[in-house]
Amino acid sequence: MSAPADRIARLRLIRSDHIGPITYGQLLARFGSAQAALDAIPDLARRGGGRAARIAGAGQIEREIEAVEGLGAHYLFRGLDPYPALLAEVESAPPALIVAGDPALLDRPMVAMVGARNASAAACRFARQLARGLGEAGSVIVSGLARGIDTAAHDGAFDTGTVAVIAGGVDIFYPPENEARQRAIAEKGLLVAEQPPGTEPRARHFPYRNRIIAGLAAGTVVIEAAPKSGSLITARHAAEFGREVMAIPGSPLDPRAQGCNLLIREGATLVQSAEDVLEALRPLHLGTPRPATRQAVADSALETDDASRRAIRDLLSVTPVAVDEVIRQSGLPAAAVQLVLLELELAGHLVRHAGGRVSL
Amino acid sequence: MSAPADRIARLRLIRSDHIGPITYGQLLARFGSAQAALDAIPDLARRGGGRAARIAGAGQIEREIEAVEGLGAHYLFRGLDPYPALLAEVESAPPALIVAGDPALLDRPMVAMVGARNASAAACRFARQLARGLGEAGSVIVSGLARGIDTAAHDGAFDTGTVAVIAGGVDIFYPPENEARQRAIAEKGLLVAEQPPGTEPRARHFPYRNRIIAGLAAGTVVIEAAPKSGSLITARHAAEFGREVMAIPGSPLDPRAQGCNLLIREGATLVQSAEDVLEALRPLHLGTPRPATRQAVADSALETDDASRRAIRDLLSVTPVAVDEVIRQSGLPAAAVQLVLLELELAGHLVRHAGGRVSL
Repeated sequence: MSAPADRIARLRLIRSDHIGPITYGQLLARFGSAQAALDAIPDLARRGGGRAARIAGAGQIEREIEAVEGLGAHYLFRGLDPYPALLAEVESAPPALIVAGDPALLDRPMVAMVGARNASAAACRFARQLARGLGEAGSVIVSGLARGIDTAAHDGAFDTGTVAVIAGGVDIFYPPENEARQRAIAEKGLLVAEQPPGTEPRARHFPYRNRIIAGLAAGTVVIEAAPKSGSLITARHAAEFGREVMAIPGSPLDPRAQGCNLLIREGATLVQSAEDVLEALRPLHLGTPRPATRQAVADSALETDDASRRAIRDLLSVTPVAVDEVIRQSGLPAAAVQLVLLELELAGHLVRHAGGRVSL
Repeated sequence: MSAPADRIARLRLIRSDHIGPITYGQLLARFGSAQAALDAIPDLARRGGGRAARIAGAGQIEREIEAVEGLGAHYLFRGLDPYPALLAEVESAPPALIVAGDPALLDRPMVAMVGARNASAAACRFARQLARGLGEAGSVIVSGLARGIDTAAHDGAFDTGTVAVIAGGVDIFYPPENEARQRAIAEKGLLVAEQPPGTEPRARHFPYRNRIIAGLAAGTVVIEAAPKSGSLITARHAAEFGREVMAIPGSPLDPRAQGCNLLIREGATLVQSAEDVLEALRPLHLGTPRPATRQAVADSALETDDASRRAIRDLLSVTPVAVDEVIRQSGLPAAAVQLVLLELELAGHLVRHAGGRVSL
């Protein structure tokens, strides 16, 4: 299934311009293989009215694979076993993950724990104990290896199993003071990266990292988060993916409790102990149904014409609009609309946004 | 409507043995007036198989009325205006209240605030500010004049309007250190008692007091309450009456937050400010539909026979059972079952429990 040539073609597709996880999935579904998709891109982009996107070269990918193997890490490809089952259900899941450590952890039930970098000492101690309690009950703890709550969660679960999802490459240590912790997790736990080795984490990488944390776990527990924080973004991803969102409450007089109290007001489950978390997750560990959107362009006999391309393009603007709305207003078959959007995207004319929305 | 003779008859009925608020309502509905009910009691009790309940004498009631008037207080009778509208919707609402102060407060939207007697200083300060904020927004604050949160709530709302519901008589000061506060509320706010003057509050009076607090208000806010506390009983009454239950969250590390966190886990709305409380109450100030149960024995032509009395009695035991269940299993008309239960109660053979349940 995953011959070296197929893996190289997949990685070339992932590392090419204008190809995010959703586009990648649509290309693979339509053309049957990564190599066929690579071959089709120039023509698709031309029909979308632009230059062909820059395609990653085989040499670049061979060097990346060499680096990954040199670090003792390896790839997990979406659509090929093994790949984390709950993450695979997320439409925007990474087409490839680079992991180092014990991949068997991915087969166990996972709970995400996230929170403030500047959390109080009491909250860090609480997070450590909660992670230990959940670990002793059989859950693997997923977090983001940031300072504060993330670090406490990894430490509490270190002996029982922890997964650290990082924003940069597996060989980049961030924050620097967590280097020893990151190395230890890459041995005894599991280190997970979406970006290739050598990638320094940038601001845009952190929300990507957060969606992986939320996507891996059956539920996300938030501890001491500000109302506008990465932890709340992770919680919103979890809710969007149909996972359980849980939060530790705090006093209205405690500014660091405001994000969690806000989540509870919005419907998150108030939890205070490992038992509460396990009780909230009981109905969810089986996973949720897989969305079907990705299959919309799978009919390889489908073709588009200039009239429909023009009609769809006229419906788009710089304001993001739901793809479903475009389909409805165009009166065209969903698969035809998806294909035109794919062509526009590969030509660099279309931007995809959260919640299945697109804009020029 | 409320001639002196009718008021005396109503109070005689209320102060008689075996006659709680629900029985009182059924008797009034069936016999049309308190005097007709008083006249019927001996016969009803005889059919229920016991001695006639002790009926309060007119002299006792005249002395009570004299005491109430001497204290500058007066009565509000359920079913006669003025009586607090939301409280009137509660099946177990007191047939008569004794009030001192400004009865116009009862016409304004009311919010109950209850909490621990041994609350933290921070929580008392928070309660005072919350009460002030709600008062400035037009709400009257109802509480129980206990130490701690209750006292703070009354103080915060003193200038804008507060109602204190007490467990004993209006002339009994409990707790003693709140004597000046109770006197001030009986002038500028409103003091409400179910028991006649001179009644020292006993343990059994406090749950009765709590149901009045919950019944007066569109919603109840709980601050720092233990999981098994009077405040949580008030919250459960509020939920049972279809009112909004709100709670101030706290850290899992704070033992005094456990009752509130428990309520939120059970579905209470997490609130942190007067705005949150007002937002939660917006759809509720209009009140809830009035339950119809009380009318079940209103058909005065209805009679019972020995066979149905025996059948119903055989269905009862020392274990409380829902009246609805007795009706279903007996196969008899609901009104007939209610009447037999009334007879048994007046004969001292039946005990009524929360949730419409009865036992021998």
